Amino acid sequence: MDKGVYWFGANGTEGSADMKVLLGGKGANLAEMANLGLPVPPGFTITTEVCNDFLAANLRRSAGLEAEVQSAIQKIEAEIDGGFGDSENPLLLSVRSGARASMPGMMDTILNIGLNDDTVLGLGTKAGDLRFAYDSYRRLIQMYSNVVLGVSHHYFEEILEVVKEERGIKLDTELGTDDWRKVIANYRDMVERECGQPFPTDVRDQLWGAIESVFRSWTNQRAITYRRIHGIPDNWGTAVNVQAMVFGNMGDDSATGVAFTRNPSTGQSEFYGEYLVNAQGEDVVAGIRTPQHLTKSARLENGEKTLSMEERMPSVFAELTKVYKILEAHYREMQDLEFTVQKGELWMLQTRTGKRTATAALKIAVDMVEEGLIVRDEALSRVDPARLEQLLHPTLDEGAHRTVLARGLPASPGAASGLVVFSADEAEALAAKGEEVILVRVETSPEDIHGMHAAQGILTSRGGMTSHAAVVARGMGRPCVAGVGAIRVDYADNAIYVDERVVNKGDVITIDGSSGEVILGRVPTQKPELSGDFETLMKWADEVRTLGIRTNAETPTDVQTALEFGAEGIGLCRTEHMFFDSDRISAVREMILADDENGRRQALDKLLPMQQEDFAQLFRIMKGKPITIRLLDPPLHEFIPHGDNEIDEIASASGVDATVLRHRARELEESNPMLGHRGCRLAISFPEICEMQVRAIFEAALQVKSEFGESSGLEIMVPLIATRTEFDLLKERIDSVADEVEKEKGSRVSYMVGTMIELPRACLQAAEIAETAEFFSFGTNDLTQTAFGISRDDSGRYLDHYMRKGIFPVDPFVSIDIAGVGALMQIAAKNGRECRPDIKLGICGEHGGDPDSVRFCHRIGLDYVSCSPYRVPIARLAAAQAALEQKKTDWVA
Amino acid sequence: MDKGVYWFGANGTEGSADMKVLLGGKGANLAEMANLGLPVPPGFTITTEVCNDFLAANLRRSAGLEAEVQSAIQKIEAEIDGGFGDSENPLLLSVRSGARASMPGMMDTILNIGLNDDTVLGLGTKAGDLRFAYDSYRRLIQMYSNVVLGVSHHYFEEILEVVKEERGIKLDTELGTDDWRKVIANYRDMVERECGQPFPTDVRDQLWGAIESVFRSWTNQRAITYRRIHGIPDNWGTAVNVQAMVFGNMGDDSATGVAFTRNPSTGQSEFYGEYLVNAQGEDVVAGIRTPQHLTKSARLENGEKTLSMEERMPSVFAELTKVYKILEAHYREMQDLEFTVQKGELWMLQTRTGKRTATAALKIAVDMVEEGLIVRDEALSRVDPARLEQLLHPTLDEGAHRTVLARGLPASPGAASGLVVFSADEAEALAAKGEEVILVRVETSPEDIHGMHAAQGILTSRGGMTSHAAVVARGMGRPCVAGVGAIRVDYADNAIYVDERVVNKGDVITIDGSSGEVILGRVPTQKPELSGDFETLMKWADEVRTLGIRTNAETPTDVQTALEFGAEGIGLCRTEHMFFDSDRISAVREMILADDENGRRQALDKLLPMQQEDFAQLFRIMKGKPITIRLLDPPLHEFIPHGDNEIDEIASASGVDATVLRHRARELEESNPMLGHRGCRLAISFPEICEMQVRAIFEAALQVKSEFGESSGLEIMVPLIATRTEFDLLKERIDSVADEVEKEKGSRVSYMVGTMIELPRACLQAAEIAETAEFFSFGTNDLTQTAFGISRDDSGRYLDHYMRKGIFPVDPFVSIDIAGVGALMQIAAKNGRECRPDIKLGICGEHGGDPDSVRFCHRIGLDYVSCSPYRVPIARLAAAQAALEQKKTDWVA
Repeated sequence: MDKGVYWFGANGTEGSADMKVLLGGKGANLAEMANLGLPVPPGFTITTEVCNDFLAANLRRSAGLEAEVQSAIQKIEAEIDGGFGDSENPLLLSVRSGARASMPGMMDTILNIGLNDDTVLGLGTKAGDLRFAYDSYRRLIQMYSNVVLGVSHHYFEEILEVVKEERGIKLDTELGTDDWRKVIANYRDMVERECGQPFPTDVRDQLWGAIESVFRSWTNQRAITYRRIHGIPDNWGTAVNVQAMVFGNMGDDSATGVAFTRNPSTGQSEFYGEYLVNAQGEDVVAGIRTPQHLTKSARLENGEKTLSMEERMPSVFAELTKVYKILEAHYREMQDLEFTVQKGELWMLQTRTGKRTATAALKIAVDMVEEGLIVRDEALSRVDPARLEQLLHPTLDEGAHRTVLARGLPASPGAASGLVVFSADEAEALAAKGEEVILVRVETSPEDIHGMHAAQGILTSRGGMTSHAAVVARGMGRPCVAGVGAIRVDYADNAIYVDERVVNKGDVITIDGSSGEVILGRVPTQKPELSGDFETLMKWADEVRTLGIRTNAETPTDVQTALEFGAEGIGLCRTEHMFFDSDRISAVREMILADDENGRRQALDKLLPMQQEDFAQLFRIMKGKPITIRLLDPPLHEFIPHGDNEIDEIASASGVDATVLRHRARELEESNPMLGHRGCRLAISFPEICEMQVRAIFEAALQVKSEFGESSGLEIMVPLIATRTEFDLLKERIDSVADEVEKEKGSRVSYMVGTMIELPRACLQAAEIAETAEFFSFGTNDLTQTAFGISRDDSGRYLDHYMRKGIFPVDPFVSIDIAGVGALMQIAAKNGRECRPDIKLGICGEHGGDPDSVRFCHRIGLDYVSCSPYRVPIARLAAAQAALEQKKTDWVA
Repeated sequence: MDKGVYWFGANGTEGSADMKVLLGGKGANLAEMANLGLPVPPGFTITTEVCNDFLAANLRRSAGLEAEVQSAIQKIEAEIDGGFGDSENPLLLSVRSGARASMPGMMDTILNIGLNDDTVLGLGTKAGDLRFAYDSYRRLIQMYSNVVLGVSHHYFEEILEVVKEERGIKLDTELGTDDWRKVIANYRDMVERECGQPFPTDVRDQLWGAIESVFRSWTNQRAITYRRIHGIPDNWGTAVNVQAMVFGNMGDDSATGVAFTRNPSTGQSEFYGEYLVNAQGEDVVAGIRTPQHLTKSARLENGEKTLSMEERMPSVFAELTKVYKILEAHYREMQDLEFTVQKGELWMLQTRTGKRTATAALKIAVDMVEEGLIVRDEALSRVDPARLEQLLHPTLDEGAHRTVLARGLPASPGAASGLVVFSADEAEALAAKGEEVILVRVETSPEDIHGMHAAQGILTSRGGMTSHAAVVARGMGRPCVAGVGAIRVDYADNAIYVDERVVNKGDVITIDGSSGEVILGRVPTQKPELSGDFETLMKWADEVRTLGIRTNAETPTDVQTALEFGAEGIGLCRTEHMFFDSDRISAVREMILADDENGRRQALDKLLPMQQEDFAQLFRIMKGKPITIRLLDPPLHEFIPHGDNEIDEIASASGVDATVLRHRARELEESNPMLGHRGCRLAISFPEICEMQVRAIFEAALQVKSEFGESSGLEIMVPLIATRTEFDLLKERIDSVADEVEKEKGSRVSYMVGTMIELPRACLQAAEIAETAEFFSFGTNDLTQTAFGISRDDSGRYLDHYMRKGIFPVDPFVSIDIAGVGALMQIAAKNGRECRPDIKLGICGEHGGDPDSVRFCHRIGLDYVSCSPYRVPIARLAAAQAALEQKKTDWVA
């Protein structure tokens, strides 16, 4: 048998930090601290391989393992001066699990192993405190019986309550030695009754029970589910750490605490943490006593009276300071420490990479580069791009109390509070008076745009992550919670009904578009503040990344925002959004209602100058940076109302016959609009729409050229191509209109014509399409919908269930499904490039702002990713990380 | 330069029938007839290569070509005894186009080339009929000016009318020589006026004008469009045939006619055709005179008085009989002949393979095998499988008059007449009284099934080729015309409104489900009669084919029909169809309305015995043949009504609260149901439905096993798999229910669990899925929808336009799109087989009954195709042809 037990302690530690696979995270770091000469209670780690063998051998431990453990215990006894099970001078042990990755759902910790009716007396004598010994004993029984034997907590609580009542006292601390004895006796009776066997008094039985329980917990349901969701292989197994107990509750010269080597919420380089005198770790967790600050400065800053560790235990604090500095310098990373002081002696129980806020992550990464601890590449890899989002939007104050009314889809990040209003006009009116409002609708439609602009946030009871509300809100950077099925929006009553609650117009609510929460009343929010660290890190990212970063935007405001966030071009300008403005929508409807081409052309003539100005504005802002303009994409029925009331309203407002409108709406109705008469199919059926848009584009481009000199970067994109013929027909038309306008104006602009690749068939036909298409932009939203056969809007009903069951490891609408959608993209990229080596490849689906997807796009060699303005920084960092990763792989290969 | 002109005639013919590529179809066959020693007017063919050279050289003919043509004309002059342009003894020529494939849209024929003011006199003298000569001359001017110079017909008609008016006569035949002279003079003035140049009187100019006009017509728009649609390459080019004129209008010993070597509508082996005495071919086409029968027997059979050719020109007829027998024996195929008799002398102008009805095709193919003319393999290749359909369904009498009211989608083939009824109950009631009815609905729903059964045919104003009406009608073999947008069905008025017409309840209409026509009144139909020839051919097909043929069916009637048509198994049993029966639908609804799993299970318990009996019936009929049972597939909302009236109706009928029903209907509503909560997603959300179905299947299988001994062939199919995990979860559940039932009954059945492959992602993940799936069945309907991103139901709006524009060469829902959908299938088949070499592969989309798709399925090595019962014979024949084709290819390779 291979070596199954690794010793750590003053006496020749066998493991090290780079042995996480075998020893788990906790075990490897305990070994590393011992190697560094830091005070670690001696102990040993049983390897993950032993765990796997144990599970494979039908939960049987081998004789070899028993021998190894036995000899390791003897080493602890030698170092600590005590005997495991020795009634005079008992050695107590802790047993803790420790897998490669932190993994909730498994057995965690059992303390005080080694206590029984004999050894408890020895412990009491040794500690000079019998009450302490019995308290420790009852803790062992309680913890062990619960975790190993499965006895429910409430049995123990009941017994404790009865004893306290008998004694007429309220606090555990008032119980004396005899009381604890009584409690222990009752505990043991109860455990025997519940389990059909007595609580083990043999200390070796206790130890093996605990160890095997850790092993078994690897296969419990919660752990399996967690692994399935997080993609952790079942064969990793867990290690077990067995360690000599140290006690922070041996009097006022004892203590326990946790610390961070830097401030985990601000990133400030200051020692930060809490401690409790005369307490064990679990007391801190239980929250019965309030922990104290570690440093004097923190105490003063918070106006606390109770002394800090720095003041109360200056020498131990000095030692701790030395330790934390050693650890941070050694790991070159902010550490999260656990320590115990036993009778004035410092013991380190754990060190690991500390969790931190996004702000702190940024600051620490940048500071550490400046301190020379790490290089820029390392700094870049240490900030999670996804978490940058919380820096860019207001967030809810974490400490604040919240009454959550309901939960919906986190459709557009950020938090906002305001008065409930039910119509766009109200929203605008109140906002004009300086009120903050939340616009609440069943669904939003193009008519609501002005209200969405005026509101602080948008809440809808229907619609998914790609509903009108969600898409528009994300573009605007407004928080939005969509599809809150649990609420009923009643326009007639001007009220929202949630279970038995009613929220009326004018009541204040708060929405958190990052979590999907709808909260009653106002919750304080934290405004985002972009530090210089952010700029620094972004600059470093830009130096490293090879992927271009563009944005999906069409309004001047959004485009401006994106440019400020570092976008290098527009990857998707959705021209249909320009049709929704109140001054255009009536012309759009006139076009849709027209009986023939002539009628449509008349209406389009009205739109032409507006579209021209739309594009001219963009060209002016972009100053020659690339702009991908997509021709009209959605089915025409999206521009006309459907509900009977809405139709009447619109009809009377725009002077159209309601019957005509209703008839046309019915005519245009589709059973599956996502797969309907849209995209290039529209341009082929109604070439005049395409012609108007192309004319507007070229007139604008030439106009701006005449103002500023050369303008370029124009890319015209045809949506929803399934066959090369569709593309060829439309390219021909685009080229001919371009030529016409250029001749009229006597000037030319350079431009490209390309296509969205958003249908599986287009991916398979990429070689053919690339013969005439000059660029591809992957529309991964629709590609995901068609590859999976899943309507994103309808998927709410089962998507959660699918994620919980691990059928989808991640939501394929959030992160590219590499095995399916990604495979299609790879086919298209490869075949497209083979046919046209210099073809420009990008992505403009929402995945363009998802770090894992950005990594994938880098790997398959796309030229750029395009995402919503607020995700541009995320994409920049993710692209840099992808480039670094590749550098590493290339180096290895 | 290569040889550009090929001579044919008595004097050493240079071409032959196998030179179609170079000489075109007509030229090759003229050469072949000359080779056979048959009387062909001498002439020559200018090759397709010359055409291509001419077009490539910017419409310039080469000097070499001129020389070749010149020398060929001299050969004609020598053989015919006349001179081209000789005023005494003029040779006249015809010029005809002739491409490789018959191709409408191109220039066809110019006759009488070589006439001018001089030669017309020579012709008159030689023929002894000056009027005939001038008539021929004016025909040349008219034809040539129209076809070559582009002068519109009406100019000629006007001039003719004026002359006739002046002379006070009505018929052309009353015009004399001088009248024709006058007409000719006026024609030439007019032509010069219209064209700015005189009609060419140089006979060589006439000839080259005609030849070049044929070449140019290869690139006219109609020809280009035709080629694009029919996939004919642009570089094939056309040949030109120049031939000495013969005249069937040189008196009563002259005639012209067309003939078939067998009866083209019955296939009977009898000489069949028509002729006209003293006429030219164009007179037959113009339809001014009624042609006579060729044979005496045909004349007598039709009770005609006018003598047949056999009686009137016995010796020429005898020669023609000899000729036709030679030709059929030589070509070993039924021929379509054109001939002219000039002054008692027979001349053959054309022979080609004759078009025929499906019945005739069958009979001819089988007869020719029996006559030893062809072998079985040839017979199989000669019948177009797609045309078998017309043998299996009633068809409209082709001669009958029809008043077409409107046109819809040809949703289910066959024709039927009956009284208009608007409800399923009425349909049933009237049918019970022996009336024939056509059920007319806006759309049909499960409640209409009994009415659809009772009706002769179904007509809907909404819905596509996969609407409920279409799918159910096809399954039942009932004619159906769906989605007739031009009609408005008004249930309140009990009327159909079409433009200004009204069709009331009880009026008779006829529908043609093969063409989509809706016709007022009763049109006589022809009942299908399956001849022994059909059985014979099918038997031969079965001997040759390697693909298995299954059927998509679930009712005992349909399954029985399919078995009679030769199905070898069920490839798709859609269990949801079993839920639509009136005795089940209420239990199904109860399940859908249930609040929780318990409620659902209660409702499912009611369905269990019915499902069990459904399956038991199928197992009994199939006697161990394979049955693929698909678990419930459609979204649940398909089982509940949506319209307000319907909801109220159903609610009161089934005693459910209408509000509850309405609420649930709204809850289940989906924006894109095709991509919705259906297929395996249902089984994962509501495992109890899957469990009920699986239990019913196994209880039935074991029941039938106990009745008959071993039953097998059971294949359980999971629909709409996108990920392997979905399949694994459901396979686990299926296996566990199977095991449970088998243990209860103490007996086992063999079975397989497999999946539909109908999503692009599933195709790409085939290797992974095949690890656990034992068979794949390609669901090409949904695969086409998702690969193209096209909702079939909504595609009507642009599909026609797409076909006309050649964007889709064929409707991808009719014939598998090989480049896209086919590529996905190939990936899946290849990867699936690599992972599991013995995986069973089939197809159950509607493409399974399309000959081209069957050929593709054969080529990629599927094990079987499955199609609707009435298409089974088509699939059998198509599969045989695919196997023969492969044999040929393998032999070549």
